Amino acid sequence: MTKNIKVNSAILIIGNEILSGRTQDTNTSTLANWLNSIGVKVNEVRVVPDEEKIIIDTLNFLRKTYNYVFTTGGIGPTHDDITAQSVSKAFNQKYEIHQEAFKILKAYYKPGEFNEGRQKMVWMPKGAELILNPTSGAPGFNIENVFCLPGVPSILKSMLGGLKNKIIGGNPILSHTISLRTVESEIANSLTKVQDENKDVEIGSYPFFHAGKLGVSIVIRSEDQSKIDLCNSQILEFVNKKNIEVVDR
Amino acid sequence: MTKNIKVNSAILIIGNEILSGRTQDTNTSTLANWLNSIGVKVNEVRVVPDEEKIIIDTLNFLRKTYNYVFTTGGIGPTHDDITAQSVSKAFNQKYEIHQEAFKILKAYYKPGEFNEGRQKMVWMPKGAELILNPTSGAPGFNIENVFCLPGVPSILKSMLGGLKNKIIGGNPILSHTISLRTVESEIANSLTKVQDENKDVEIGSYPFFHAGKLGVSIVIRSEDQSKIDLCNSQILEFVNKKNIEVVDR
Repeated sequence: MTKNIKVNSAILIIGNEILSGRTQDTNTSTLANWLNSIGVKVNEVRVVPDEEKIIIDTLNFLRKTYNYVFTTGGIGPTHDDITAQSVSKAFNQKYEIHQEAFKILKAYYKPGEFNEGRQKMVWMPKGAELILNPTSGAPGFNIENVFCLPGVPSILKSMLGGLKNKIIGGNPILSHTISLRTVESEIANSLTKVQDENKDVEIGSYPFFHAGKLGVSIVIRSEDQSKIDLCNSQILEFVNKKNIEVVDR
Repeated sequence: MTKNIKVNSAILIIGNEILSGRTQDTNTSTLANWLNSIGVKVNEVRVVPDEEKIIIDTLNFLRKTYNYVFTTGGIGPTHDDITAQSVSKAFNQKYEIHQEAFKILKAYYKPGEFNEGRQKMVWMPKGAELILNPTSGAPGFNIENVFCLPGVPSILKSMLGGLKNKIIGGNPILSHTISLRTVESEIANSLTKVQDENKDVEIGSYPFFHAGKLGVSIVIRSEDQSKIDLCNSQILEFVNKKNIEVVDR
């Protein structure tokens, strides 16, 4: 059974620490791989600072443009965590205590430890639904098509399982990689021909250096395995003709 | 001597491989760290696919909004490398052979090896200036305030030296980090007070896990060292009062 739906999305990374170069973002790749596996394409990624107006404007553009938006970062207890209040303003919703989140965190902490700082993490836009956090208690949330996740990579990863039943994906995007012992310029023309003959398949070419040797990985992506197979055989045909070694396929 | 200039920028990462999650972008953090060191702030990052119209529209917005724009990716020899032609269209400039780049690559390759695929890499917008590539020959280029760099991280890094004399930065953005053995919620209120008293200083709070222990790094950023020192002493004051261990400062 083939669902014939295209589902697209954007990732909005919120945090000065990414823009300053202090922190290496890894959430984009985690989210993108996971989204692909459930048939959601990532069309763009934006990284913005912890500034309310920028978050609101960017979010309002992205949520109206794509089926889903995933934000990371800014949902902790400190002053620079302003995602929940910004999302509330973007949706013109009250920013208020989420009763279920309050109960969860009250039970999570020892008596007396659920202090004012921690209580900030249960303030959300009115109407938000929780995304449970099996790692550190404080839930993420979604409102309409916007899903707000934490910035800490290990916590974000642990919350993806709880997201799955909230997102309706299309056909998973399949991919196949052919790695060659060559350089891009040796195969550029032949590869262009294959791309021209298969316009609805995404063919990417990526040079690599591994164990002191140069190579090129060709990545074929489509929702349709038979189209991938056809490109694969066309590529292997010119690869064999040129006597190029296939390292891994 | 203090230059009182604010210089801002955006990074535009071009490549389906980042959006699919296949490749982990590291160029953002490389560029951001380097730009900060020469007094250029990175205000936003966007990741877009290898699609001409999207590249043109995004570039035209960014180049008119910021002092500098740095693109990475899409300047190699294959069909999915469309940055140079997209930049030409964004600037309404002819896409043509850059004579100096042609000479460089002709000398770089052995006789007969400067084939059609490789020659694609000398096509650039009319009026482009070269950014030399000490690693693999093929130069990047800039036109007005847009600087086009390759996607391969090691090659990009090797080209930053050649960029330096083309960019006029403002005051370098200084930073100081205080790492504490605590959790964010214990310090959230006190830290908010320090931020409120020092509105023009950027104070970020970042939880970390290291050697099985939780901690929080507080990062203070400003162009003015004396403002950083003032925040630092205010933070250490509440840290000492609360008997929180300073791991590293």
